[in-house]
Amino acid sequence: MSTSFQEHYPWTGRPLIASAAMGGYAGPALATAVSRAGGIGFIGALRDVAILDQQLTSAKASLQNDDLKVASESTLPIGVGFLLFATPLDDASVVIGRHKPAIIWLACPAQEQDFGTWSKAMKKVSPSSRIWIQVASVSVALRVVSTCSPDVLVMQSSDAGGHGPFPGAGIVSLVPETRDALNRGGFSEIGVFAAGGMSDGRGVAAALACGADGVVMGTLFLASKEVELPAKEFREAILKTNDGGISTARSAVFDQLAGKSFWPSEYDGRAIAGASYKDFRSGVGIEEVQNRYAIAAKEAHKGFGEEVRAAIWAGSGIGLVTEVKTAGEIVTECRDLARLCLQKAIKCL
Amino acid sequence: MSTSFQEHYPWTGRPLIASAAMGGYAGPALATAVSRAGGIGFIGALRDVAILDQQLTSAKASLQNDDLKVASESTLPIGVGFLLFATPLDDASVVIGRHKPAIIWLACPAQEQDFGTWSKAMKKVSPSSRIWIQVASVSVALRVVSTCSPDVLVMQSSDAGGHGPFPGAGIVSLVPETRDALNRGGFSEIGVFAAGGMSDGRGVAAALACGADGVVMGTLFLASKEVELPAKEFREAILKTNDGGISTARSAVFDQLAGKSFWPSEYDGRAIAGASYKDFRSGVGIEEVQNRYAIAAKEAHKGFGEEVRAAIWAGSGIGLVTEVKTAGEIVTECRDLARLCLQKAIKCL
Repeated sequence: MSTSFQEHYPWTGRPLIASAAMGGYAGPALATAVSRAGGIGFIGALRDVAILDQQLTSAKASLQNDDLKVASESTLPIGVGFLLFATPLDDASVVIGRHKPAIIWLACPAQEQDFGTWSKAMKKVSPSSRIWIQVASVSVALRVVSTCSPDVLVMQSSDAGGHGPFPGAGIVSLVPETRDALNRGGFSEIGVFAAGGMSDGRGVAAALACGADGVVMGTLFLASKEVELPAKEFREAILKTNDGGISTARSAVFDQLAGKSFWPSEYDGRAIAGASYKDFRSGVGIEEVQNRYAIAAKEAHKGFGEEVRAAIWAGSGIGLVTEVKTAGEIVTECRDLARLCLQKAIKCL
Repeated sequence: MSTSFQEHYPWTGRPLIASAAMGGYAGPALATAVSRAGGIGFIGALRDVAILDQQLTSAKASLQNDDLKVASESTLPIGVGFLLFATPLDDASVVIGRHKPAIIWLACPAQEQDFGTWSKAMKKVSPSSRIWIQVASVSVALRVVSTCSPDVLVMQSSDAGGHGPFPGAGIVSLVPETRDALNRGGFSEIGVFAAGGMSDGRGVAAALACGADGVVMGTLFLASKEVELPAKEFREAILKTNDGGISTARSAVFDQLAGKSFWPSEYDGRAIAGASYKDFRSGVGIEEVQNRYAIAAKEAHKGFGEEVRAAIWAGSGIGLVTEVKTAGEIVTECRDLARLCLQKAIKCL
């Protein structure tokens, strides 16, 4: 990564911590709070970009007295993440052209070449915006950088909560191998951000130690005060669930609870392995899983209650998430702890 | 972890790097070379402990002029790893009582309580040997330390090559959460070693940064000069396979190639996703997968050739393994690089 990398995000501090663009959860309150703390806050766009338009208007208003330093005066010091397969590009272009977020994060295309189409379209309507592209393997990373010119590759590990291509690897193998491949291919200026499984400053320290230029965290921000959640039971489940390797699972069933999945078949998602998942795994037919979910969804807890019939997207680091904090506290604490961990690790040598 | 931890392994240097007890691959040549370089070398025992007896005799002879410092004069400065479900405890006790390796690593019991039975039996025949126990979740870790008194928990991540319980998590969530749980439970003196996905000094640095007391590496040592391999094509496959998150896979099919699996159902294994795996995944029946394997196994390459019909156990870090080196070089290089990575990560803050 070039030493000037952070110049593109001049409001940020080190280490670079981004909040994941969790569609439906990461709105303007979370994104602006993270950026205000010197992190990189993202809004996760949904299919209906009219909502994103409102969210960006709200973010802009919220940030207008903050005086966060941006690389280009026309950009907002937050990012927007899109799920490409689900989003009409033309609609997205209009909104991005209007609001010009500092970063546009592209994820989950229906076909790999959509990364190129989107990168070009976004640069056209907002030339100062930086492009981040999320992938989950070294091979796709190499193909993508050859056709697009992303500023950052978000390397999503198999530990990540929410959606991604299956199968995958943890960051300790994914990040170093990607870095080597990029350097060999002449792409050393592209940043590599680690995503998935990191839920406190120790994970951040680990990511930096194995060569990441920054870290994306999602699950931890589900416990932030600013995140948007569908029910209070959602957060209660996040806080009380431990041992994410066995209490969460990757499965396509989470996308079929309310009917046919609209996700392309190469994606699944990691969520809490609740009653719907357990039923499905033990042989209950999908129709019956859906029936049981539909009944639970009518309750006040909307299916997020005790037995967890709804999808609570979360990564394997969920067990480290035990307290509600402001996003600003989360960013600052992760940063401080990461620094301490690196110092301590060196001292022990 | 107590500061006196390394006193139990006085021949070692820092950071602590152990070679995995890969049964059939990690013999006396590898174990002694790793320990000689200041690492912790393990022999992986097979069901027939008469072989282990010979291996330990050979290791002892090999080490007799090395003068590696041991904590107890009666112990050998290497370890032995057992697959509990497959090994007759009485036979193992006789061999351990005779050779007294410094460490006995217990993995893969048929039932969790076997960890306790084995720990007691091993301490009885070799009181100075330290017990390491391999688990893959925080919950099992906590149960095991309450009943056994291991010196070290080997926390095996989902990235690990070879066998383990499925599902699991990467080290960045598994190691910190385990450390917290141990400390809260009053087990802060127990060491936590990270295993799985780390294939060079960057992975080692990451493990240390997130709180591991040491690191176990397996796949990387498959490229060591001292490892025992069934065919030259095995190593060629290890060296040329990239992108381990998608080019390896966890599956129970690898244990069924030569007939019914003798592994308990809660275990599967990560291996190169070769032709047998691909056939099975695409719907080819297990009998036909076995037939095709049987034909390939009769070739000079024993099924390890180009299309990979045999099981080549390897972790998600396989893409970082590109060169054959001595085990001593591997240990030294990992250590040096880990130190550099930690220093570099701090400098970038």
